[in-house]
Amino acid sequence: MSIDLPSIRTRLEDGVLFATLDAGSLNLLGVDLVRDLVSLVDMLYTDPGDIRVVVIDSASPDYFCAHVDLTAVPQYTAEAAKAGGPGDASLGMFLYKLARVPVITIAKVRGRARGGGNELALACDMIFASREKAVFGQFESGTGALPGAGGVQHLARRLGRTRAIEAIVSADDFDADTAERYGWINRALPDTELDGFVERLAKRIAGFPPEGVRVAKRAVNDLTLASPAHIRSDAATFQSLIARPESRERLDHLGARGLQTPGGLERDLGKAVGDFPEDNEDS
Amino acid sequence: MSIDLPSIRTRLEDGVLFATLDAGSLNLLGVDLVRDLVSLVDMLYTDPGDIRVVVIDSASPDYFCAHVDLTAVPQYTAEAAKAGGPGDASLGMFLYKLARVPVITIAKVRGRARGGGNELALACDMIFASREKAVFGQFESGTGALPGAGGVQHLARRLGRTRAIEAIVSADDFDADTAERYGWINRALPDTELDGFVERLAKRIAGFPPEGVRVAKRAVNDLTLASPAHIRSDAATFQSLIARPESRERLDHLGARGLQTPGGLERDLGKAVGDFPEDNEDS
Amino acid sequence: MSIDLPSIRTRLEDGVLFATLDAGSLNLLGVDLVRDLVSLVDMLYTDPGDIRVVVIDSASPDYFCAHVDLTAVPQYTAEAAKAGGPGDASLGMFLYKLARVPVITIAKVRGRARGGGNELALACDMIFASREKAVFGQFESGTGALPGAGGVQHLARRLGRTRAIEAIVSADDFDADTAERYGWINRALPDTELDGFVERLAKRIAGFPPEGVRVAKRAVNDLTLASPAHIRSDAATFQSLIARPESRERLDHLGARGLQTPGGLERDLGKAVGDFPEDNEDS
Repeated sequence: MSIDLPSIRTRLEDGVLFATLDAGSLNLLGVDLVRDLVSLVDMLYTDPGDIRVVVIDSASPDYFCAHVDLTAVPQYTAEAAKAGGPGDASLGMFLYKLARVPVITIAKVRGRARGGGNELALACDMIFASREKAVFGQFESGTGALPGAGGVQHLARRLGRTRAIEAIVSADDFDADTAERYGWINRALPDTELDGFVERLAKRIAGFPPEGVRVAKRAVNDLTLASPAHIRSDAATFQSLIARPESRERLDHLGARGLQTPGGLERDLGKAVGDFPEDNEDS
Repeated sequence: MSIDLPSIRTRLEDGVLFATLDAGSLNLLGVDLVRDLVSLVDMLYTDPGDIRVVVIDSASPDYFCAHVDLTAVPQYTAEAAKAGGPGDASLGMFLYKLARVPVITIAKVRGRARGGGNELALACDMIFASREKAVFGQFESGTGALPGAGGVQHLARRLGRTRAIEAIVSADDFDADTAERYGWINRALPDTELDGFVERLAKRIAGFPPEGVRVAKRAVNDLTLASPAHIRSDAATFQSLIARPESRERLDHLGARGLQTPGGLERDLGKAVGDFPEDNEDS
Repeated sequence: MSIDLPSIRTRLEDGVLFATLDAGSLNLLGVDLVRDLVSLVDMLYTDPGDIRVVVIDSASPDYFCAHVDLTAVPQYTAEAAKAGGPGDASLGMFLYKLARVPVITIAKVRGRARGGGNELALACDMIFASREKAVFGQFESGTGALPGAGGVQHLARRLGRTRAIEAIVSADDFDADTAERYGWINRALPDTELDGFVERLAKRIAGFPPEGVRVAKRAVNDLTLASPAHIRSDAATFQSLIARPESRERLDHLGARGLQTPGGLERDLGKAVGDFPEDNEDS
């Protein structure tokens, strides 16, 4: 395995590839990060070498991955399309491919994982989060859309009907403890214990005979993953909804207040989407 | 939207319809309450006006909704039948229609929600409960029957096999904290925080563009709701079981001790169904 | 009902059969215990008499059931085959039959329930565990295999995708509190309360009219159990994986260090499977 990715720092140790997302302080899923994730996943399918487990975390202390780059939806979608077959041009189908990659993937989450960033975590095989610093959310309903890259599928299957509806249509932030109680993530751990816990677990699994691990993951995936038809449908619905005037208006309003720039609004995006003025005028 | 319902007090505010069940101290699902719930749901399908979210709670401090009126099963079933197509004469099919209503519904539970009352809560899109005052239960197995209006379907899908079997065949009461741990409800909240939490959440969602919320709810419903065939089957099984002699005997015994009258037995109905004398004689 | 089983002590009281596994200090699922479990389940199908509920626990303070007897896989499989039809020669298909038995079964777990022992518990209708003394785990991935007797199916459906993958491919031990949080078991209870809780619950259910209980269990089973095809596939995969050289090597290494003998390695088997030396030489 040999890979050099501009926006993902990698380190291979004892069968574990530590992949640290490093695409700016927000770690937006834009052209750069999607391109590099596509390359990484392609390598894991075609030439994994000694890699048995991949741990994905973030170089940014406040953001695991803020969300997709809403100013470049067609562009990052074009990058995501390079991962798939014809007609599968969506971030959702790329993350679906990630979910089925024949090694084990672990999301280690500090900071915010919202929208596509949360869906990136949900596509991993396990999610461990900092109790103090992790935040999860699908804010799309607050802008007139819905989670378009697997979030609806994963949350409905994992949280059950009422909690999934709350998670999606509330568009709100969920701290790590609540996410654990809801079955959204594996566990919330004290921040000081998170790195050690994940490293030990990853190296442990990397030391097991790989065929059994691969077969077990595939068996669970067969029982729990959505069908591609569901993923394609959600992606199409997302694209259709964000093109509607009321969605453009919400996104423009958030954009004028600092969306996608480091700072206050992004930090509290779950709260911010609830603050749209009733008169529908930017103020 | 204009609606005047004898047994449901309503108030519309900022897109949220606050619907308070007010059908006597037990809030039994009898002719009056079922008739008014059918009218409410019909209005939400055909002429919702500004209503985006409905919050359902109870005017009775001790009962969200005790259960169905066991003295009037044919009568309330006839009312429920008015909600559906031919052949769908069951409370279960009406609650199934409620679960798919194109606005968001939130059950805010204080007091007891048992049997059909619990199934009413389960048919809502979210359930938030008073940690100190809410009680959930499906007591039907204790009387020889089974939950016939969706409870089996919701609990099996939401709680998983072993907890669903416990919830149903134990026929016991579950406090709000246990219900939260089991994934039966969204959350147990301190009683003093419950109203504020639900009102803020409801108004927040009511402020979002409605099309995305509607589509997201439908997508989750498609993945998590039972099929009508399951609902119809459970309803038929319930009708068949409660007609059996051993079920009549249990209900008569409970009736003689105060079933459906405010007071001791109804308060502790979970316990009471376990106290049937072994000699099968009323004592 | 009349049954005399060498490795299972039974006591019938108020409709509850207390069945205490007593097949040595490890309670291995070997020829003796599988033979007697097959007899017990056969009796529950054909001649249950007054039995309405079965409580399964262990005579060994440290082991509910350590796992299958890895030195006698063909032999215990032959015993399990006696429970089923032609072509269903697997422990998994026998436990699948147990899961559908027309009485209620409750696993009361103290000590370790790993591998097939955990799958025995998962096949019961409810699992209550000692908070201080119960340990759950599927250690198979650590030896190159996967849970072959229902574990993949139950855990994937009950824990959701990410927690099921963790439970299986980590091959690690889970204490009762974590198992409860993951939805693996019904509840962890203080050890001093466990016996009383389970006995009261079992006798309560045994006192209800049996037809409703039976129908309710069947309805939940229909929604939550795997299909036989899944069970057969997992059994075949398990048989195939444990025959591979890397699996033999791991099992031989564990065998040389005390696998299947009372003592240190079995007590901490979750840890032990992670300690395979990197040079692949027994040391």
